[in-house]
Amino acid sequence: MTSPVLCPVRFEDGALRLLDQTRLPAEERWLSCRSAEEVADAIRRLAVRGAPAIGVAAAYGLALAMSSAAGDETPLERFERAAALLAATRPTAVNLGWAIDRAREAAVAHAADEPAAVASALIEVADAIVAEQRESDLRVAELGAELLEPGDRVLTHCNTGALATGGAGTAGGVIAAAWEAGRLAQVWVDETRPLLQGSRLTAWELTRAGIPFRIVTDASVGALMARGLVDRVVVGADRIAGNGDVANKIGTYTVAVLAARHGVPFYVAAPVSTIDRDAPSGDAIVIEERDADEVTHIGERPIAPAGAPAANFAFDVTPAELVAAIVTEAGVLRPPYRDSIARALTG
Amino acid sequence: MTSPVLCPVRFEDGALRLLDQTRLPAEERWLSCRSAEEVADAIRRLAVRGAPAIGVAAAYGLALAMSSAAGDETPLERFERAAALLAATRPTAVNLGWAIDRAREAAVAHAADEPAAVASALIEVADAIVAEQRESDLRVAELGAELLEPGDRVLTHCNTGALATGGAGTAGGVIAAAWEAGRLAQVWVDETRPLLQGSRLTAWELTRAGIPFRIVTDASVGALMARGLVDRVVVGADRIAGNGDVANKIGTYTVAVLAARHGVPFYVAAPVSTIDRDAPSGDAIVIEERDADEVTHIGERPIAPAGAPAANFAFDVTPAELVAAIVTEAGVLRPPYRDSIARALTG
Repeated sequence: MTSPVLCPVRFEDGALRLLDQTRLPAEERWLSCRSAEEVADAIRRLAVRGAPAIGVAAAYGLALAMSSAAGDETPLERFERAAALLAATRPTAVNLGWAIDRAREAAVAHAADEPAAVASALIEVADAIVAEQRESDLRVAELGAELLEPGDRVLTHCNTGALATGGAGTAGGVIAAAWEAGRLAQVWVDETRPLLQGSRLTAWELTRAGIPFRIVTDASVGALMARGLVDRVVVGADRIAGNGDVANKIGTYTVAVLAARHGVPFYVAAPVSTIDRDAPSGDAIVIEERDADEVTHIGERPIAPAGAPAANFAFDVTPAELVAAIVTEAGVLRPPYRDSIARALTG
Repeated sequence: MTSPVLCPVRFEDGALRLLDQTRLPAEERWLSCRSAEEVADAIRRLAVRGAPAIGVAAAYGLALAMSSAAGDETPLERFERAAALLAATRPTAVNLGWAIDRAREAAVAHAADEPAAVASALIEVADAIVAEQRESDLRVAELGAELLEPGDRVLTHCNTGALATGGAGTAGGVIAAAWEAGRLAQVWVDETRPLLQGSRLTAWELTRAGIPFRIVTDASVGALMARGLVDRVVVGADRIAGNGDVANKIGTYTVAVLAARHGVPFYVAAPVSTIDRDAPSGDAIVIEERDADEVTHIGERPIAPAGAPAANFAFDVTPAELVAAIVTEAGVLRPPYRDSIARALTG
């Protein structure tokens, strides 16, 4: 039984259609965004999320900006206003800035054209990013699956499937490919507080795909490893520094430290576009802090005393020394990462 | 501003009154238990929780058993039936079995008496356990506070204050005493999934006490330590083995591993009654597994796809090598723990 292909980010009839990930798994509700402002809002409140998927959404958002009311702005001025708005939504995912930079090249090349022609060019860029992402995901999945062995019980954190990329997923793609290839017994799904991307989204995707899994609280990972119940860890990445330090969803670092203690290989699956050429190490990566309400409430429901303060770092940095391999579409990168990453970027 | 003394476990007018901890912080509702069955139910669903507090509740529950309808049972038969019921509620907390054993001595001594006389004797035992717990908590708090230094930012996991012991608390008592002594800047409160004893209960206690704190998700601890924001960890214990291995709320082991990596001292605060003479190491400690619904739901609200499987280990074991000190009323125990624990037990 194969599950239907999931395309959570679609450009149809002049609108960006997004499967609202804040509503899953309770309901499958689609949003229609017709302006850059609506796309920015969807990214900010995580209706669309996952570093690759928000890059794609931003690229379509820029195209939408071209068709909105002009005033006396030039197309390029309008582009830059939308680009600034979209770039500011989430600071940690590198794909956002990368997608905007690619769109800017097209906007500059068409600067003298009518807004509609610029919009068409930007849609072409966004479509190309989607197509490349899908191809890249498939290659990452194929290479990553080869690292697994029959019977493996694989732990993953956050959500890195189709919902996160618009393609096969990164770590989620590796897991699905390993399952198809008979190299996977079961997935351990970290719930991934505060927004529960594991129990809400990864569990939903695995259920659709018929892959066996069990959800655990994030605090259970140490106990699972101490009992010998985890054979490998595969996670995605929001930004990878030139030395192999990996910024990813908060809690990833904790999993990596536990994996190191228990001799469990810790793999990162991500496209080359996730590598930040301007970040020599994790110290250079800006970590997004989000609203404390995400910690003190589940949806609208308070789970702490009224007004209780909370800290909500959205990401953490896993130092390269804890990463056994980074699986990219350009190959499986191994330490020392400064060398293997440089080769992947130029190759 | 001193907060009113909190006695969440009280025996009044022939009933055990329990502050229902499943309702906090939303409401302060009191339960009245008039039978061992009602007490067992309250322990099982965590209306009363914390290893010391459930020991106290069980002791009063045995007294209540003596006043319930007799049939043709002898008082001792009735005692053993209630003891079996109460002992089966939670397997990991050692204080439960320990309190039952103490009550059994009194029941045996009064085996020939009327049920009412046995009940009185059992209430005396329970009252004595409460009084000893309060005294022990104060000593633990005093000794533990001396380990902290002015300006310390202390991380704690789960709830270990008055709600957990009926006295000043264990780790919670250390934190309160350190605050009074000017040896504490701020508390980091792990939310402690799945049942959120940190964000619901510890945050509630710290708010009442006027002690500054911030809540974080359990998965944030690594990031906090990597940023140098945690100076010490203080946690309680549900059972301590003879070699110093510590069973405590799930997630404690993860915190201990991270603390070791970052050179943050990891302290355990617990009464001597938490030490299990029959467990030579953590391997001998039975770990309670609870209902998967606690992971896949918040209260009645599902947070995962319907029917999604989950694993819910309630405790984990932190190996002695990760524990810098165990603070007991008999003194601050240091490695090698087999020696220091043996001295505390005989001292």
